Amino acid sequence: MNKNFIKYSWEEFEKLNLHQKVPLFNHGQTPYHCLIAQQFDRNFLDHLYHITNVIRAISKSKVGALFLQTILSDKRAMLYFMQPSTRTYLSFKTACQILGIQTSDVRDSSISSEVKGESSEDTIRTFSSYVDMIIMRHPGEGMAEKAAWVLEHSERPVPVLNAGSGKDQHPTQALLDIYTLRRSFENFGGLQGKTVLMAGDLMRGRTVRSLAQILTLFEGVKIIFSSPENFKMKQDVLNILRTQNVNFIETSEFKKYLPEADAIYMTRVQNEHDTDSFKSEQSFPDFSLNFDDLSKLKEHCAIMHPLPRRQEIDPKIDNDPRAKYWRQERNGMWTRAALMVIIFGKCNEVLNYWSDISKQVNHTAKANP
Amino acid sequence: MNKNFIKYSWEEFEKLNLHQKVPLFNHGQTPYHCLIAQQFDRNFLDHLYHITNVIRAISKSKVGALFLQTILSDKRAMLYFMQPSTRTYLSFKTACQILGIQTSDVRDSSISSEVKGESSEDTIRTFSSYVDMIIMRHPGEGMAEKAAWVLEHSERPVPVLNAGSGKDQHPTQALLDIYTLRRSFENFGGLQGKTVLMAGDLMRGRTVRSLAQILTLFEGVKIIFSSPENFKMKQDVLNILRTQNVNFIETSEFKKYLPEADAIYMTRVQNEHDTDSFKSEQSFPDFSLNFDDLSKLKEHCAIMHPLPRRQEIDPKIDNDPRAKYWRQERNGMWTRAALMVIIFGKCNEVLNYWSDISKQVNHTAKANP
Amino acid sequence: MNKNFIKYSWEEFEKLNLHQKVPLFNHGQTPYHCLIAQQFDRNFLDHLYHITNVIRAISKSKVGALFLQTILSDKRAMLYFMQPSTRTYLSFKTACQILGIQTSDVRDSSISSEVKGESSEDTIRTFSSYVDMIIMRHPGEGMAEKAAWVLEHSERPVPVLNAGSGKDQHPTQALLDIYTLRRSFENFGGLQGKTVLMAGDLMRGRTVRSLAQILTLFEGVKIIFSSPENFKMKQDVLNILRTQNVNFIETSEFKKYLPEADAIYMTRVQNEHDTDSFKSEQSFPDFSLNFDDLSKLKEHCAIMHPLPRRQEIDPKIDNDPRAKYWRQERNGMWTRAALMVIIFGKCNEVLNYWSDISKQVNHTAKANP
Repeated sequence: MNKNFIKYSWEEFEKLNLHQKVPLFNHGQTPYHCLIAQQFDRNFLDHLYHITNVIRAISKSKVGALFLQTILSDKRAMLYFMQPSTRTYLSFKTACQILGIQTSDVRDSSISSEVKGESSEDTIRTFSSYVDMIIMRHPGEGMAEKAAWVLEHSERPVPVLNAGSGKDQHPTQALLDIYTLRRSFENFGGLQGKTVLMAGDLMRGRTVRSLAQILTLFEGVKIIFSSPENFKMKQDVLNILRTQNVNFIETSEFKKYLPEADAIYMTRVQNEHDTDSFKSEQSFPDFSLNFDDLSKLKEHCAIMHPLPRRQEIDPKIDNDPRAKYWRQERNGMWTRAALMVIIFGKCNEVLNYWSDISKQVNHTAKANP
Repeated sequence: MNKNFIKYSWEEFEKLNLHQKVPLFNHGQTPYHCLIAQQFDRNFLDHLYHITNVIRAISKSKVGALFLQTILSDKRAMLYFMQPSTRTYLSFKTACQILGIQTSDVRDSSISSEVKGESSEDTIRTFSSYVDMIIMRHPGEGMAEKAAWVLEHSERPVPVLNAGSGKDQHPTQALLDIYTLRRSFENFGGLQGKTVLMAGDLMRGRTVRSLAQILTLFEGVKIIFSSPENFKMKQDVLNILRTQNVNFIETSEFKKYLPEADAIYMTRVQNEHDTDSFKSEQSFPDFSLNFDDLSKLKEHCAIMHPLPRRQEIDPKIDNDPRAKYWRQERNGMWTRAALMVIIFGKCNEVLNYWSDISKQVNHTAKANP
Repeated sequence: MNKNFIKYSWEEFEKLNLHQKVPLFNHGQTPYHCLIAQQFDRNFLDHLYHITNVIRAISKSKVGALFLQTILSDKRAMLYFMQPSTRTYLSFKTACQILGIQTSDVRDSSISSEVKGESSEDTIRTFSSYVDMIIMRHPGEGMAEKAAWVLEHSERPVPVLNAGSGKDQHPTQALLDIYTLRRSFENFGGLQGKTVLMAGDLMRGRTVRSLAQILTLFEGVKIIFSSPENFKMKQDVLNILRTQNVNFIETSEFKKYLPEADAIYMTRVQNEHDTDSFKSEQSFPDFSLNFDDLSKLKEHCAIMHPLPRRQEIDPKIDNDPRAKYWRQERNGMWTRAALMVIIFGKCNEVLNYWSDISKQVNHTAKANP
C-alpha cells in the first residue's frame, strides 16, 4: 500500500497533474500500478529492456520456458477488456502464461454484474478479491487511474496495468515501441540522435502521443510529425517537446521525408473516435507506404506500425528486412512480461537463473573447446 | 455412481421432496453433487469450514500455494454459466485455479451447439465427456438437478455444482454466508444464540432463503425479517422455521432493529425477476444502511451483503471494521475450494500436509526459541 | 518451414488439386498443418491410433496424467472459432489441456481487431506472434488453407489445424470416426470388409463426405448411402469411390438396410446451409433410428453420430451397448491429442514413457505373482 496515495480523496487526486501522480503510482522509482507513460524514466527503461532481453533468451529452451512459468505461478490476473482488442489482449494474456500467472477474463459487460447496477468501483474491488493483478482496457477516460485509487483505499491494493484507457494513455504500447526502436538500432549507434517520422492520424493516436513524449528521454532525437491538416499532433504534446528542447517539425508532406528517416511510424485513422460533427475517411492514401517507396528509405530504416493496419503499409513490404511491425507485435509480449517481473519484484530470480546458466555454458564450452 | 439414483425415472424423481433427494445427491453423509442447501448438516459444515481454514492457511506461502495446485491437477471443470454473473463465476473459477483444476467456459449460448437444436440433456452429457466436474448457473428452475439426473443415468456421472438455478437455490452462497458469520463471531461466542437481521427483497432473494434455512442448524439463533409489505419472506421458508422452533419475527421496520442485531444481512431488489404484472423499484431507501446508522450498531455487529449492491449500503461504510461484505466475497472462493476438496475425496492430503508443516514449524520454534 | 510451399503465390496455390496440396501441408509423410482428409494415409492412421491408445492408457493414473501435461507444457495454442461449436471447441481445448498446452480463445469477432478493418491475413499473422499452433473453425471456404499459406510465407510458420472450414472439410472429425469404427470392431475382425450405412443429409454433411473418402483406405469396405432424394451424396465423392473401386450403393430406403449394417452413421439435417431457394425440414423422420429398430441390428453393430443430434436417434438407445456416439465424442479428444503429439514430434517421449511403465508393471508382477 502506498501511504501517500491514501491521503488523497478522489476529488483531490483528480486535480493533480501527471507528474504529481507519478510518485503515487510508483513504489520507489519503479511502477507498481502502470498507468501513464510519465512513470517511465531512462533508468527504468534501461532496466526493463535488460530484463526483457534476459527473459527472451531464457525462453528459447524448453527448460528455460518451464523455469519462467514458475516465476509467478502462485499469482492470478484479471484481463478486464471493455473495448475490442485482439493484439493487446493476447499480448498481455501470453505474457501472463509465460510467467505462469493464471488468468480470468471479463470481456463482455452483458455477462457481468454491471447489468445488475453495480458501480464501477465495486466491480474493481470485486476483481481484486480474486486476483493479484488487474489488466484493464476501458473506453472511459481515467478509468484505470480510478481503479488504482479505489484499490489503494481498500484492503487489497493489487497492481493495475493500463492496457489503454480513453483517448489518451496506452503506456505499455510506448514501452514496446521504444524497445523495438532500440533493438533496430542496436548495430547503428542506438536511438540517440535518430530521426523518427510519424505519419497519419496524429491527433487521435494514443500510441504516437505516448511515444513522442518518451522519446524526450533520448538525446538528440528529431521527430517529424506528418499528417493531414486536420489530424495534427495536439499542442499539449508539442508543448512538452518544446519544454524539453526536442527538435521537431510539423508537415503535411510525407513522402518527401522518407529519405531522411531512421524510423517511420505509420498509424491508422482512428475513426472509432469520430463524432457527429467530425467525420474522417477510412484511410489517408497520401500517408501510406507503397512497395516503390522502399527504394527511398535508408538501409537501416525501421518501419513500424502499432497494428491493426488498413492501407497504411502495402503487405508486399512485410518481407523486407526493414519491416519491423511483426516483431514489434511480439516485442509487446516480452516487454509486458518483463514489466510484470519488475512489478512483482522477481528481477533477481530471473537474473540469477540467467547468470547460472551462462556460467554453465561457459564452463562447458571451456571443458569442450 | 449412486445406485439408488439410477432407479428413478425423471418423472418419479421430480415428485420427490427435497429431503428425499438429499441421499441421492450425497455420497454417504457428504455432498457429491452439490445442488440444494438441504444437503448441508451441522457435521458437514463443521468439516467444510475446518478444511476452508486449513486451505487458507496453506495458501499464505508460495510453496503452500503450489502444493494446493497439485491437489486436483489431473482434473478439468466446466463453467457453464447461462445467466450474467461476475462474482460467482470468478469465485468458482479461482477456486479451481487454487486447486490446479483446468477449466473451460461456456457462457454464451449463441456460440454453442444449442443453436443447432441440441437438447439440454445432450449438452450436459457432452460437457461430461470432456471434464470431471460441471459448475452451472442456469435460469431454468431445477436445471442443475436435471443435469445430475442425466449424468447419473450415463456412463460418466461427474459431480454437478449448482451455482444458482432458477429463483430458488444457490447453495454455495449459503455456505460462504454461514462461514462469514462464524468467523465474525469467533471471538464473540460463535453463531449460537445470535440475532440476524435480514433486510430488503426477502421474497425473491435466493441467498436469504437459503441462509434462513441453514441457520436452523445453529441453536438459539433469532431471525428478524425486515422488508416492504410486498416483498416478505415466503411462507414455505417460514413454515420450515416454525417446524424447527426457530425464533423469528416479521416487520416492515428496519432501523428500529439495528441496535439489536448481531449481524445485518442486506439485499438488493431482484428486479430481474419482475413480471409484467409485478414491477418493483430499483431500491428500497428505507431498507438501506447509511453512514450515520453505524453509531446504532453493536460493536461486533457483522454487516453483510451478497453483492452486487446498489444503494443498500453507503460505500463510506466499507472501511468500518464491521463491514464484512468484501471478506464475505473472498470467503466464497475459499469455501468453494474446500467443497471441491471434499467432493474429490482429497481432505486427508490437505490435512496431512498441514499437519507436517505445523510440526516443522513447532520443531523449528523449539530449536530456535 | 516448407521450402516447396513458399514457391507458390496464393493464386498458383489455389489452382492446385487436393493431392498436389498434400505434400505442401505435410512434413515428410505426416501432417504438419492438418487441413484436409486427403493428408491421411493408412500408415499415418495406424501410427495415430497407436499413439491415441497409448495416451489413453497413460492418462488413467494421476501420475500418468501429470506426465502427459509435461509433453507440450512450453507451447501455446490459439482457438480461433468463428462458427458456433461446443463439441469441437471443447474437444480441442481439452486435448490441449491434456498435453499441458496453454490456450487463448478468439470466439467473437466483435471483440477482436477485425472490427477495426484488419485483413484476415493480418489477423492470422498476429495470432502466430503469440502462439505455437492455431486451431481454427471458419465459415469461409478454404480459410484454413489460406491461414497456412500466409504463415508459410511469414517468419513464424506455426501449424494450422482445421476444425471445420466452409461446407467441405473437417478432417479431425474423420480421424475420430475411423478410430471409433476400429475400436468397435476390435474383436470382430477389424474394419476391413465391413458394411457402413450412412443416413440423412449426405449432401451437406462434411463428416460423411470426409469419412467416405477415408474408408477407401480399408479393404473390402462397403458403403450404403441412404438419404432423401434431394440430399444425396455429391458426385465428387462418388467419383473418388469409383476410382478406388469401392463398393457402394445409393438408396432412399433406410430401415431395409439395418440388418445388413456393421455400422450405422446417422447425421443431422444441416439447415444452417439452407439458402433462399433451397429450404430443408428440421429432420427426416424416415432416416431416424427408433428404439424398436434395435432388434433388427447386428449384435456388434456400431451406432454412430457426429452430434449434436435432433431426432435422428431416440435417446432411449443411449444405454444400448451398440450406441457408440458418446464414446465417439470422447475419442475426438484423444485422437486430437495424439495428432498434436505427432505434429510436435513428441511420439518417442510418449512411447518411451509407456514402455518404461509397462516394464515396471511386468517386473512388479513377476516379483509379486
